[in-house]
Amino acid sequence: MEPLSGIKIGGSSVSLAERVLRGDVRATGRLISLIENAPEEAEQELRALHAYTGNAHVVGITGSPGIGKSTLTDRLAKRWRKEGFQVGIIAVDPNSPFSGGALLGDRVRMQDLATDPGVFIRSMGARGRLGGLARATHNAIRVLDAAGKGVIFVETVGVGQSEVDIVRTADTVVVGLVPGMGDDIQTIKAGILEIADVFAINKADRPDANRLVIELQMALGTSGNADTGASARTEGRWIPPIEQTIASTGEGTGALRKAIADHWEHLQRSGELETRRRARYEAELQSVVEDHWRKRFFEYWQQRGHWEQVVEQLLRKEIDPFTAAQQLLSPFLDSEIGG
Amino acid sequence: MEPLSGIKIGGSSVSLAERVLRGDVRATGRLISLIENAPEEAEQELRALHAYTGNAHVVGITGSPGIGKSTLTDRLAKRWRKEGFQVGIIAVDPNSPFSGGALLGDRVRMQDLATDPGVFIRSMGARGRLGGLARATHNAIRVLDAAGKGVIFVETVGVGQSEVDIVRTADTVVVGLVPGMGDDIQTIKAGILEIADVFAINKADRPDANRLVIELQMALGTSGNADTGASARTEGRWIPPIEQTIASTGEGTGALRKAIADHWEHLQRSGELETRRRARYEAELQSVVEDHWRKRFFEYWQQRGHWEQVVEQLLRKEIDPFTAAQQLLSPFLDSEIGG
Repeated sequence: MEPLSGIKIGGSSVSLAERVLRGDVRATGRLISLIENAPEEAEQELRALHAYTGNAHVVGITGSPGIGKSTLTDRLAKRWRKEGFQVGIIAVDPNSPFSGGALLGDRVRMQDLATDPGVFIRSMGARGRLGGLARATHNAIRVLDAAGKGVIFVETVGVGQSEVDIVRTADTVVVGLVPGMGDDIQTIKAGILEIADVFAINKADRPDANRLVIELQMALGTSGNADTGASARTEGRWIPPIEQTIASTGEGTGALRKAIADHWEHLQRSGELETRRRARYEAELQSVVEDHWRKRFFEYWQQRGHWEQVVEQLLRKEIDPFTAAQQLLSPFLDSEIGG
Repeated sequence: MEPLSGIKIGGSSVSLAERVLRGDVRATGRLISLIENAPEEAEQELRALHAYTGNAHVVGITGSPGIGKSTLTDRLAKRWRKEGFQVGIIAVDPNSPFSGGALLGDRVRMQDLATDPGVFIRSMGARGRLGGLARATHNAIRVLDAAGKGVIFVETVGVGQSEVDIVRTADTVVVGLVPGMGDDIQTIKAGILEIADVFAINKADRPDANRLVIELQMALGTSGNADTGASARTEGRWIPPIEQTIASTGEGTGALRKAIADHWEHLQRSGELETRRRARYEAELQSVVEDHWRKRFFEYWQQRGHWEQVVEQLLRKEIDPFTAAQQLLSPFLDSEIGG
């Protein structure tokens, strides 16, 4: 990898981005903190990293609390490590006000993983700022990608819409379920079925594991226009495999690792990887454009003291919000654009 | 109420807005459907209604599934009806693909409520389109407000961030809890504590009701800087009352109704009603401005075929998203604005 042009190497004049590219762990952590706390400052570094991204396999891991996501992630991470890959783990918890630590508050990561220099673990949380959290997570993935992680796990707590939005930006989405949690039907209802590329039935030594597998197979069968798995595979479509695991002992995680690798191969062979990444870039571009514009717009009107004035007019019913919006937008849509 | 200027009365030339103001139930339903399915068409009608809004007391009711929210809402609705108020009920379920019906799919409203012409009941659901759902709910509230409903209940299913965002636009937020559901601590963690104006401990005949009350009191006490309720009241601050109810029999719903009325009085007396409504108008204005701008921006670039082009460049790493955003925004930020 060539050094970035125009950047002096040596001492403190080396940019964070350059240090990330060289595999500097502390710089990687600092850049992710910058992304969280001063996104505008981070932008310059992210610009420099963009050309070095797009190589990592991003694996999302989601499911209800208590299904053993972190143990599952840790087991998978160790498998990738054994094959020589560098690994990134981002644990996202929108309900947690904590962020930036290497460990989630409620449990300690496997010690051997946490001390392995080939593994970068990071938790991200931000109660209330969900849009911002999705963007921050996305940019953190970009940093780990540029830092040379071959696989990046994004683990989300819960199955709410916001978590789904975060995890669906992954290349491969693993949905974890546990037999007898009573959330089978609810989980399927919550739209989890559509985003899953691989199912992991964890704690598969519990009584109802087989019933859950059958329920899932039925749900998948009917949702796929009554196609059989065989004919779908002939057409090159992906039928989410259902793997049974016991993360606490590691049982079944080899097969799960293989299912995830198979999906990665499928994505590349079928051209779907490019389709997914195009959609992801499009969503990101849209979000960056809107953030930048929003900032300029509000600065413009707040400097003129006009924003508060319009809100007062709304409150006094002197204007309606649609007419007000039209007026405020007019300087930002000149006649050429407005058509 | 004066008829809107410039609108012919009689036959089909009367606008939907005008018919809503006259209390036409079918027109009210049609306008809400328009809000959901063709928001731009609805805008014209909403403009006309704005001056007639701001009179209703909007009561949000939230809590985990299974705590009896709909029964609680129905009991409260009947109490307001008895006092002569017109009542609106909007039941929001972001996970449901169904919308527009007068009943939620999974249970039938009390028959006497559903057939009472003084009560307008509506369910709204829209899996995946959460931003749009919040806005649609807000506009539906506006329609019922203009239609003369004195109280409007907004019932949300679940306690996810999206539901919290919807319910927090209410004047008074009632958080329902049930003893022994095991979600006590989780609910408090999920930020429910901060948004509650009134707590309803429903199914209060269950064993652990008193413990839940004590837990809540402790959480409220410590969260308020160790102030006692008495000193807080002296300062005019609101301490969320905790009411015990059994919605299935109606027990305790009179006290709950009083607590909600007390909060409404507090909002008006303390000036907080205006503060909340100002914040709500501000958020709405922001969202309308952004929607309108977004539409123009994407039309502009898509007409020129340039949007797809930039996404391809991102995919090929020829440009980074921040530089791309800057380029796309430049026609929308002329030199005068850009400063």
